[in-house]
Amino acid sequence: MKGKRTDLGQENCGIARALQIIGDWWSLLIVREAFRGKQRFSEFQKSLALAKNILSSRLKKLVDDGVFVIEPDPDSALSHRYVLTSKGEQLYVILIALWQWGEENCFEPGELDVAMVDKPSGQPLAKLRLMAQDGRALGPRDFHLAPRQSLATDRAARVGV
Amino acid sequence: MKGKRTDLGQENCGIARALQIIGDWWSLLIVREAFRGKQRFSEFQKSLALAKNILSSRLKKLVDDGVFVIEPDPDSALSHRYVLTSKGEQLYVILIALWQWGEENCFEPGELDVAMVDKPSGQPLAKLRLMAQDGRALGPRDFHLAPRQSLATDRAARVGV
Repeated sequence: MKGKRTDLGQENCGIARALQIIGDWWSLLIVREAFRGKQRFSEFQKSLALAKNILSSRLKKLVDDGVFVIEPDPDSALSHRYVLTSKGEQLYVILIALWQWGEENCFEPGELDVAMVDKPSGQPLAKLRLMAQDGRALGPRDFHLAPRQSLATDRAARVGV
Repeated sequence: MKGKRTDLGQENCGIARALQIIGDWWSLLIVREAFRGKQRFSEFQKSLALAKNILSSRLKKLVDDGVFVIEPDPDSALSHRYVLTSKGEQLYVILIALWQWGEENCFEPGELDVAMVDKPSGQPLAKLRLMAQDGRALGPRDFHLAPRQSLATDRAARVGV
């Protein structure tokens, strides 16, 4: 990888490619606001107190990258709404991972007076846990990258292909 | 929140505070490299091909924010190592969430030739799943923010306090 930001989109790494799309504070905060029900430029602008030119460029990139789709605004023929696509909605796992890490590591005890809760029960969400396919809990040193080719070979060997 | 970046660290939101620390492409890629075993400035510099002044400023911020701690380098009295703290290691959930979203949404079929596997079995990790405390699977619209005070009140009401 070179030092240029645009190169991230070609990296052979899911993390790098994800960051190419949402690796910017404002982009993820815009997505956060969308999960809170915001859809219109003016709503994002008001809740984030973000300069219009910055909001405009971030929204354009998020539309270009397939995170939002533009739809007509039923309340105004002159306006439109930014609606999360399925790809955009799947960012919720990243937002919750950020929330839970921030909640644990970035506040003084008793400082944070809100919690992320599940709607039906109103109780705080369970902590995201990384697990193996067989259900074993995995810690920060329990995974690594491996070539996909070797996985296919392993599987083939196990089933006697 | 105002348009200034430094304000994020005061927001009453775990996402905003997490982004204040790691909401920068290079910061998370440096952490990624640390999980791959990199510890020295020269190792980060080589693997990320990052300008020295940018790497230096990002590492300094990550140390200031408690993600890395500086330790002596056993191989060189003139050098030192950047070692992930416990706070830094807990970022693995965010990295895996980014990886899994990127893997699903940012590659053509068959394009990505590596997989994130668990070390003991060598099999791909299970997908991170958001769950309620009682084990119900939660989707992107199944959670919201609530005041902590109301949780305490709810609990008190349930146990008859």
